[in-house]
Amino acid sequence: MTGIDDLPIRDELKGKSPYGAPQLDVPVRLNTNENPYPLPEPLVQRIAERVAEAARSLNRYPDRDAVELRTELARYLTRTAKHQVGVENVWAANGSNEVIQQLLQTFGGPGRTAIGFEPSYSMHGLISRGTGTGWISGPRNDDFTIDVEAATKAIAEHAPDVTFITSPNNPTGTAVEAETVLALYEAAQAAKPSLVVVDEAYIEFSHGDSLLPLIAGRPNLVVSRTMSKAFGAAGLRLGYLAAHPAVVDAVQLVRLPYHLSAVTQATALAALEHTDTLLAYVEQLKQERDRLVGELRALGYEVTPSDANFVQFGRFEGEGGAHAVWQQILDRGVLVRDNGVPGWLRVTAGTPEENDAFLDAVRDLKKEHSA
Amino acid sequence: MTGIDDLPIRDELKGKSPYGAPQLDVPVRLNTNENPYPLPEPLVQRIAERVAEAARSLNRYPDRDAVELRTELARYLTRTAKHQVGVENVWAANGSNEVIQQLLQTFGGPGRTAIGFEPSYSMHGLISRGTGTGWISGPRNDDFTIDVEAATKAIAEHAPDVTFITSPNNPTGTAVEAETVLALYEAAQAAKPSLVVVDEAYIEFSHGDSLLPLIAGRPNLVVSRTMSKAFGAAGLRLGYLAAHPAVVDAVQLVRLPYHLSAVTQATALAALEHTDTLLAYVEQLKQERDRLVGELRALGYEVTPSDANFVQFGRFEGEGGAHAVWQQILDRGVLVRDNGVPGWLRVTAGTPEENDAFLDAVRDLKKEHSA
Repeated sequence: MTGIDDLPIRDELKGKSPYGAPQLDVPVRLNTNENPYPLPEPLVQRIAERVAEAARSLNRYPDRDAVELRTELARYLTRTAKHQVGVENVWAANGSNEVIQQLLQTFGGPGRTAIGFEPSYSMHGLISRGTGTGWISGPRNDDFTIDVEAATKAIAEHAPDVTFITSPNNPTGTAVEAETVLALYEAAQAAKPSLVVVDEAYIEFSHGDSLLPLIAGRPNLVVSRTMSKAFGAAGLRLGYLAAHPAVVDAVQLVRLPYHLSAVTQATALAALEHTDTLLAYVEQLKQERDRLVGELRALGYEVTPSDANFVQFGRFEGEGGAHAVWQQILDRGVLVRDNGVPGWLRVTAGTPEENDAFLDAVRDLKKEHSA
Repeated sequence: MTGIDDLPIRDELKGKSPYGAPQLDVPVRLNTNENPYPLPEPLVQRIAERVAEAARSLNRYPDRDAVELRTELARYLTRTAKHQVGVENVWAANGSNEVIQQLLQTFGGPGRTAIGFEPSYSMHGLISRGTGTGWISGPRNDDFTIDVEAATKAIAEHAPDVTFITSPNNPTGTAVEAETVLALYEAAQAAKPSLVVVDEAYIEFSHGDSLLPLIAGRPNLVVSRTMSKAFGAAGLRLGYLAAHPAVVDAVQLVRLPYHLSAVTQATALAALEHTDTLLAYVEQLKQERDRLVGELRALGYEVTPSDANFVQFGRFEGEGGAHAVWQQILDRGVLVRDNGVPGWLRVTAGTPEENDAFLDAVRDLKKEHSA
C-alpha cells in the first residue's frame, strides 16, 4: 500500500505527523484554550440572518478586501486597545495562522529566517517550515519570561528577517512588557530592517494593556489577533493584524485572492455587533483563571503567572513526567494539554463547573500520590 | 510616507501588484466566470439553518478533518464522475487556490519546480511563486490545445516536481483529452516521480467526462475541483481534490490546523443537499455558452471551442488590441475579461438577458467599426 513517504513529497516532510491536539471525546475538554461559553442565542440568530443575506449573493465572489469587516475590527481595536486605527491598518484572514503564513510568505520565505523565544506557540515554527523560512529557537528565562539580554544577543547574532513575540505567551501564559518588545524591536532593526510580530491571540484575558499603540511610528511592527478566544469563535477561523498601512498592502501581494469567504465575513460582522456580551464572558474567564491559579498553588503545584485563558502548572519530574500526569487526569475525564514543555502541563480556564471537575481530578491525584 | 517597497519584503515581491480582476460596479459583470444564478431561496434557508446549528458550538474548533463534508463531496464525485471515491480520497480547503497552495507546499517549494501550459489559470504560476516553487511556462498549440509532443519534451527537459493540466482550460475553455493527460503523466513519471494536477474547476460545464477515473492506480495524479462555479458558490471559497489516500494524508503535513471554518463546512454541506437543483442551472449555462459561441461566430469573431462556462473570442489585432475592445465593451455597460492573451478576450456565460446585453454591445461595436 502506497504511503506518504512513497510519494514525491519534500524531504523535510518525510516521517512528519500533522500538527494538532488529539480531538478526544471526553466530558471536560480543557486542552485547546477554547472559550467554554457558547455564543448567546440572539447572536446565533443574528449570524443566521447575516449569513442568509450573504448566501443570497453567494454565486458572486466575496469582497476581496473585506472592507466592512476590517472597518469594524479597526473600530473594536480603537475602542479596546486605546489606539486609533483605521481600515487601512487592519488585515484579516482565515485564523491568525493564515495571517502569520501571509506575513512569512511576504517577509520570510526561502533564504530567510524567523526567530521565536521558546517554549512558545509552536505554529510559529511550523508555519516557518511550511513557508521555507529557516527557524531559530531563541531562549527564555527559567520562569518563562523573556531574557532580554539573551534575546537581543540572539537577534544580533542571527539577524532574523522575522521576530515573533507572543504576549501573553502560549503555553506559559506569560505577558511581555512594552519595554521588552521595544528592546527586541530595536535590536532587530539594528541587525537589519526586519519584521517584528507581536502575537496577541490572548490579550483580552491579560491584566495589562495591548501593545497595539507601539505600532505608531514603527512600520516594521505588527500586532496579530484572533476572534477564536475572546470572541468565543474558534470555529469561525478569523484572525487579523494591525500595522502600518504599507504592511497591509504588502501581504496582499501573497494572499490568495478572495481568501476570506462571504459567510466568514458575515459571521464575524455579526459577532462584532455583540462585542459587549462577549467581553463580559471574558471577565468571567479571567476570574476563573485567577481562581485556578490560586487553587493549584494551594494544592502545592508550581504555577506560572498567567495573563491568558489558561494556566501552566507543574512540576512533574517523576516517572513518565508530565505526560503520565496528563494521562492520569484524562483517566478522570478531564482533557488538558501536554505541550511537550518538560515538567509542565497546561489547563484551559473553562466554566466554573469544568474547572471544579479539573480541580477535583488533580486533588484526587494528590491524594493518591500522598497515600 | 512609507510604502511597500520601503518594507523588508522579499526581493521578488518588489514592484509587484496584488492579483485580481478589477471589481467594478457595472450593470453586467461577465468577467470572473461566476455563476449568474443566485442560490434558490430554499437553499438559502437551509444554509441559515445549518450555520445557526454550527454557530451554537462556534466557541469550539471545527472538525479539523472535515469528515462529514469530505464524505458528501466523495458521494457527489462518485455519482457524477463515474468513479467510486471515499472520504479517504478527498481533501477540502478554502477555495481550490488553497488546495493548490497546499499541494505546492508539499510537492513543490524551494529548490523545486512546477510547469503549466500557457495561457492557463494564472494562479498556478502565482501560487508557485508564493510557495517558492520555480515556475516553468510550457507551450500550447496556436489553437490553445496542448501540443503533446512539445509538452512531453518540456517535461523531459525540465523534470518538474509538479505538472499542472487545466481541463477545461482557463481562459481558453479548451478541454484536454484523457490520452493527453496520460501521455503527460507518463512523461512526468519517466523524468522522475512527481505530482500531476488536473485542475477541473470547470468540468461540470464540459461536453465530456471528468478525468477523475484516471486517479485509479496513479498515486501521483490529483484532480482538483471547486464549488465556486457549478455550485454557484464563489463566495463560499470551497475547493477540494480527489486522489490516492496517501496524497490526502500528505497535504495534512502542511495544512494550517483547523483551516476550514465550521460555517464554511456547514454552508457547503447545505449546498450539497441541493446538488440536483444546482446542476440544472449548469445545464442552462451550457446552452447559453453554446449560444454565445454560435452568435459570436455568426458575427464574424474567431471563437475558441469551449467546455467551460465562458468563451474566448477574438481576434483583436488593431490599435490597442484586445484591451481597447475590452474598454469599448465596458463603455457599453458590460464587463468582460482581458487576461492578457494577445488578441483575445474572455466572456462568462451569464443569464440569457446578460448574454443578450453582451451580444448587443459587440454587435454595436461591429456596426461602428464597419460604418
